[in-house]
Amino acid sequence: MAPQTILSINAGSSSVKVSVYTYEERGKVPYQEAEIQVSGLTAPPASLKYNRGEHAEKKEVPGVTSQEDAFEIILKHLIGDEGLPMIASHNDVGYCCHRVVHGGDFDDAHALDQVTFRRVDELSDLAPLHNAGALALVRAVQKQVPQARNIAFFDTAFHSTIPTYISTYPIDPKVAKLHKLRKYGFHGISYAFISKSTAKFLKKPLQELNIIALHLGSGASACAIQGGKSMDTTMGLTPLAGLPGATRSGSIDPSVVFHYTNDAGTLSPESTKDMHVTQAEIILNKQSGWKALAGTTDFGVISEGKSEGAQLAFDILVDRILGYVGSYYVRLGGRVDALVFAGGIGEKGARLRKELVEKVRCLGFELDPGKNEQELEDEVVDISASGAKNKVLVCQTDEQVRENSGEQRRRC
Amino acid sequence: MAPQTILSINAGSSSVKVSVYTYEERGKVPYQEAEIQVSGLTAPPASLKYNRGEHAEKKEVPGVTSQEDAFEIILKHLIGDEGLPMIASHNDVGYCCHRVVHGGDFDDAHALDQVTFRRVDELSDLAPLHNAGALALVRAVQKQVPQARNIAFFDTAFHSTIPTYISTYPIDPKVAKLHKLRKYGFHGISYAFISKSTAKFLKKPLQELNIIALHLGSGASACAIQGGKSMDTTMGLTPLAGLPGATRSGSIDPSVVFHYTNDAGTLSPESTKDMHVTQAEIILNKQSGWKALAGTTDFGVISEGKSEGAQLAFDILVDRILGYVGSYYVRLGGRVDALVFAGGIGEKGARLRKELVEKVRCLGFELDPGKNEQELEDEVVDISASGAKNKVLVCQTDEQVRENSGEQRRRC
Repeated sequence: MAPQTILSINAGSSSVKVSVYTYEERGKVPYQEAEIQVSGLTAPPASLKYNRGEHAEKKEVPGVTSQEDAFEIILKHLIGDEGLPMIASHNDVGYCCHRVVHGGDFDDAHALDQVTFRRVDELSDLAPLHNAGALALVRAVQKQVPQARNIAFFDTAFHSTIPTYISTYPIDPKVAKLHKLRKYGFHGISYAFISKSTAKFLKKPLQELNIIALHLGSGASACAIQGGKSMDTTMGLTPLAGLPGATRSGSIDPSVVFHYTNDAGTLSPESTKDMHVTQAEIILNKQSGWKALAGTTDFGVISEGKSEGAQLAFDILVDRILGYVGSYYVRLGGRVDALVFAGGIGEKGARLRKELVEKVRCLGFELDPGKNEQELEDEVVDISASGAKNKVLVCQTDEQVRENSGEQRRRC
Repeated sequence: MAPQTILSINAGSSSVKVSVYTYEERGKVPYQEAEIQVSGLTAPPASLKYNRGEHAEKKEVPGVTSQEDAFEIILKHLIGDEGLPMIASHNDVGYCCHRVVHGGDFDDAHALDQVTFRRVDELSDLAPLHNAGALALVRAVQKQVPQARNIAFFDTAFHSTIPTYISTYPIDPKVAKLHKLRKYGFHGISYAFISKSTAKFLKKPLQELNIIALHLGSGASACAIQGGKSMDTTMGLTPLAGLPGATRSGSIDPSVVFHYTNDAGTLSPESTKDMHVTQAEIILNKQSGWKALAGTTDFGVISEGKSEGAQLAFDILVDRILGYVGSYYVRLGGRVDALVFAGGIGEKGARLRKELVEKVRCLGFELDPGKNEQELEDEVVDISASGAKNKVLVCQTDEQVRENSGEQRRRC
């Protein structure tokens, strides 16, 4: 069998990130050859960043304003790079693996045939802010590299194991069924990665792994993982619920937004024919979080705590995380193999880890201050104090590497 | 000084409850003489229940449909009862103590002079569903017993000690300040009572008391009390946030209601000139909770778990409570004198207590099954297993007895 070239695609509302993998044979992990990203689609000029081994490029790409444009210029760049012979023409792209944020009831990755595409398109009403980019990209792939097979990997799928009494909202069940209103949870691709890496690190079978995992980035969530499976997570019907993020409020009294503005329920000007978003959802998803409190989305600046707003944003995040750590510790019956930090802030936020772990000391977690400060080298690093009852780990998670348990694994 | 007659008044949206106290001298606790309640104002015919010592009456009161009517018939009934000589005429009412649900920034009880009344009226925009009854009653008192002094006791005041990083929502601080959007918390009159009773029972100074208190009724909340003061609670800007209740959803993804109905932000038909309530607030406050899941607001029926909906409602409530117990255990740094059950369901819900405490065993709580099942006799009862690390108590809380720390205490 000839090596296959796989593109792993992550399309957000203002960026497209593509990792190039080659895949040789069943059982072998795909090998990452290059990584390319176009960002700033909604704040032109967009810029392109490219890395292949030691080779790195960065340039402005004026005129690129849509996901489709971005994919076109990315393909052109990859084909034009002589150091990347596995993509010499459009025909060399075998598979495109798309990260799709909201997968509704899909409990695994799925080939994007016409029926599946329609299903994904329909349920995107639940998360128009989050799925629109991925769907635009699937259309671009179908047009530009029609021979490639498209496979969707859902950020919700890992959470399909959450029990009904946790995923059900206490609202009218008929309306809930009709509109598919329940807790879905997100960051599932990351939590699947974290679970496997942590199990391997702790030399435990995955199905015996109990952890509290924190995926902390500009979007942040926590997950209680029992027997290798999600049993609860902080995000809900949409990524809005749970922890605050860079521009997201996280969980607040559902009444708040109606007191924030009289126009909460009206459509936002950002809505399009295909994408209906209320003012409330824009306010709570895009105009809140630590950007609103501290005027920056850079958590490094928040973490320095040099302004009152930054310190408040920091304290709020620590407080909300520790609340969930307490909740999930109890949900796991106190049998917790590790508290695992991941995501950009989880990896780099030494101060956040320090303040948080001090506050959950009563649950048996304790840091080694030296290990907490050191640079991460391995995929998983133990930063617990020696002799602590429960472990604290940092995991360098990777949402581009997509694995799943079923049929698709052999194809992507 | 002649004995004073005090009416302690609790006016909800469809009922008015009045307790009659006499107060002899400073330092003495007021003595409860009688209790009278008119309920069913919004589901006529209303009914009147009266208790004085061994004497009990119950009758329908057709035509009574407003708080004002209810107060008029209550006064008439009290004046007409020869066994209650301390209220022989309207002139005998010295003080009326009103329970006001939302007190905004008031951190203590307050005499309802014109200025205060206006302030309370203004902030009632934050909780129109909850404050309207009390304000209607204050007006009725001013009209019917103009010589009486009105004093407001706020359900929010006990929570004025919650730190800023917990009470702040991660939203635009300017808008939050303008519209007074923050976590306030409710059931404060009950939590103040629970704290004092528990401290007395445990023979600890109040300022050293750390407890996790659960006020569980058709409205339910939890509170982390540190050093006798509220440090966090589950309700928020309004009583909607936190635990689900009889008709309340509790905390859900703030996006949910916009997917539930396109009319989330429009005014509900229940709105009046003075009371603006959105459809969303009606749906989440009045048409959700275990009524929506199980078709009943009777927690006794839910607790039997004879239908799938009832069992689900029960499991959801247990799950959400245990999440908060875990959170608050951590917020209190693991130094918890007791987990205290209160409110109708807290007092009567032996099955709920059993299932919940089993699930928080990893935090050192454990029940004595016999004590859990027995009838409550004292104000506070210890139901912990002997030798358990942390205590579990049941407290018969009383929201009619209002005490507070400041000036008002001497006046009411």
